[in-house]
Amino acid sequence: MNLTEIGTRAKQVSRILAVLGQQEKNAALEAAAEAICANEAEILAANEADVKKAVERGMSPGLVDRLRLTSSRVSDMADGLRSVASLHDPIGEVESMQKRPNGLLIGKKRVPLGVIGIIYEARPNVTADAFALCFKSGNAVVLRGGSDAIHSNTAITEAIRKGLRSCSLPEDAIQLITDTSRDTVRAFMRMKDFLDVLIPRGGAGLIRTVVENSTVPVIETGTGNCHIYVDASADLQMACEIVHNAKTQRIGVCNACESLLVHRSVAGRFLPMLKDCLSEKNVEMRGDEASCSLIPEMVPATEEDWGTEYLDYILSVKQVDSLEEAIAHINRYGTGHSEAIITSDYSNAQRFLDEVDAAAVYVNASTRFTDGAQFGFGAEIGISTQKLHARGPMGLKELTTTKYIIYGSGQIRP
Amino acid sequence: MNLTEIGTRAKQVSRILAVLGQQEKNAALEAAAEAICANEAEILAANEADVKKAVERGMSPGLVDRLRLTSSRVSDMADGLRSVASLHDPIGEVESMQKRPNGLLIGKKRVPLGVIGIIYEARPNVTADAFALCFKSGNAVVLRGGSDAIHSNTAITEAIRKGLRSCSLPEDAIQLITDTSRDTVRAFMRMKDFLDVLIPRGGAGLIRTVVENSTVPVIETGTGNCHIYVDASADLQMACEIVHNAKTQRIGVCNACESLLVHRSVAGRFLPMLKDCLSEKNVEMRGDEASCSLIPEMVPATEEDWGTEYLDYILSVKQVDSLEEAIAHINRYGTGHSEAIITSDYSNAQRFLDEVDAAAVYVNASTRFTDGAQFGFGAEIGISTQKLHARGPMGLKELTTTKYIIYGSGQIRP
Repeated sequence: MNLTEIGTRAKQVSRILAVLGQQEKNAALEAAAEAICANEAEILAANEADVKKAVERGMSPGLVDRLRLTSSRVSDMADGLRSVASLHDPIGEVESMQKRPNGLLIGKKRVPLGVIGIIYEARPNVTADAFALCFKSGNAVVLRGGSDAIHSNTAITEAIRKGLRSCSLPEDAIQLITDTSRDTVRAFMRMKDFLDVLIPRGGAGLIRTVVENSTVPVIETGTGNCHIYVDASADLQMACEIVHNAKTQRIGVCNACESLLVHRSVAGRFLPMLKDCLSEKNVEMRGDEASCSLIPEMVPATEEDWGTEYLDYILSVKQVDSLEEAIAHINRYGTGHSEAIITSDYSNAQRFLDEVDAAAVYVNASTRFTDGAQFGFGAEIGISTQKLHARGPMGLKELTTTKYIIYGSGQIRP
Repeated sequence: MNLTEIGTRAKQVSRILAVLGQQEKNAALEAAAEAICANEAEILAANEADVKKAVERGMSPGLVDRLRLTSSRVSDMADGLRSVASLHDPIGEVESMQKRPNGLLIGKKRVPLGVIGIIYEARPNVTADAFALCFKSGNAVVLRGGSDAIHSNTAITEAIRKGLRSCSLPEDAIQLITDTSRDTVRAFMRMKDFLDVLIPRGGAGLIRTVVENSTVPVIETGTGNCHIYVDASADLQMACEIVHNAKTQRIGVCNACESLLVHRSVAGRFLPMLKDCLSEKNVEMRGDEASCSLIPEMVPATEEDWGTEYLDYILSVKQVDSLEEAIAHINRYGTGHSEAIITSDYSNAQRFLDEVDAAAVYVNASTRFTDGAQFGFGAEIGISTQKLHARGPMGLKELTTTKYIIYGSGQIRP
């Protein structure tokens, strides 16, 4: 099936999904969950083929683990669909309805975006997660997963489509592009007539390619070079615990801390404490000159370190002379994801919140909280690091738009 | 000055503007208005040079009129700045602050986008209007106007910068790119590191070029192939008045009606009425076969007519057999701008509102109301026909984004 045909079908189906009731959508998510469980054997067999090929090709064990499905991971996927069914449906709400002086009644109604394209890498669970969120918010979804997971993605998509058919709903609410060639993905990014938005989920390289080549509006997700600034007035014990948590609780995620800024006046006390605390996890610290002279085991940091998202047990460390210097450094090197200050000073806390330009700005808490579930959204499709449309964790509401509805009684414009 | 330098300055200034208070911003808008009035002679002289060149080059009288400034148009520009000063400032509002179970207090704070790029054509008043809205919402603006208005735009920008200086505010809050070459505009569209959003204002060709070439997120504005559907149950007198208003009250605008759909059962009564009503303005009607056989003066419509935004005294006319056919036609040929149904049937009205996919959907009113001032926003930077970020008339709020602010007391993620 060619892309134009896929796009046309998605567009047609999106008209139907846009007006589906909540009960029908929830029943379909339940049916899709059941179909995933019922087709577990097929899904696992398909996944086994992907894993075998990946191992033969020499994929790293970490990536193979992300690719691998097990019986319990398949159940988790089905549970994910059910839990999305239980979320509040934002579609149909009308905001700020007002009567204008001429009698027109104007309101802003929440509606689906229409057709959402998702480009992702080798995590097959994204197939089910992305479908669930797009479907619940009334959108058709067109998926283009990585070639490494093609058999798994096909089997999961097929199961979900069976579930939809069992509810007499159009199976094209989810379509998977099985041609994983480079030309096809480039053409997919230019399907402006069919796609309302394109969301890339994956590494920085994938996201850059999509931003550079897409004519469809893109929501950038993911890259996080997150900082923690330890202010002169910080509770240093709290600072240690927060840095330890943000750096090591899970290293491969976008809201992990990658860089530490510390006020010069407390660096002498704080850095040795932190070193002890992080050495338990063998975290490599890469410091500026002043920090290296305090902690001889530190590796000297280069300019490149300040801009690097390590996703590893590495932390860059820099001393600053003031809050202003910390904020300027963050606004220069940060990726606009999550940034934290540890302080007991009221006005420094407020200035940090005001002046740091990022999706989530924290006082005295770990950056690891930037997450749809942690923020209370129930689920997320990604974390936006751009400013347009959505910023920070994106839940169901971020997969919707609005339209003005206007009730008149014959008004014409004078 | 090269683009990187312009971008760097805009970014620096945006940090200052983001934390300016309302009073400072309003005083600066007042000072800019005064400076425009004080520099009227320079602005008019510069405009005269543009107009002279345009006439020599054979620009059409309509476009020359849009380009031309007069003493009263300069005053209007200054009044525009003052009226934006009087609008409500959305910056700093915190929405839906909530306490999470772990004690984190999370809120969504409204903040400026940062740096806004505007690409526009030969209307010099856009220079002052765009500055006012961007500045009031705390953004730096980089303008790239058409070469036909380069002297006018430079003089207006210079006056505004004087006004800013007089308030000790950074004049780079507004910067104009004076190199109007094609290469420079292409490079401007790729200034992803400096621009947070790019808004093209102008014709369909300009907008297409920007969408195709920009790596900066774009908000599409403007194109409007707007329909009015006259339902079987319509009050035909009301329908006549609304179509007349939407077609002829102002023809060159994006919310004018371009296409009429009429239920076959009332076409025989309605089309002759409408013809009489529109003949006063010499509107050319281009109809499908059935309509042409009713009104012999009609010109036969081609497939191309259904998709054309005439911006002229021309209306395409098509008969349909049902509400469904009308909605399907609109969703196929419309540009997602403004669409209206004239009906006295409750469920047809609701279905039209639900199923038509457009920024503004009307029952029994003229499409001409899709406008920031008419909707009560005070002013608008354009009308978005895309679904991401903003849809419909864009006022100050649409020039902002949000960031999550999180107040903690040492929370770490378990």
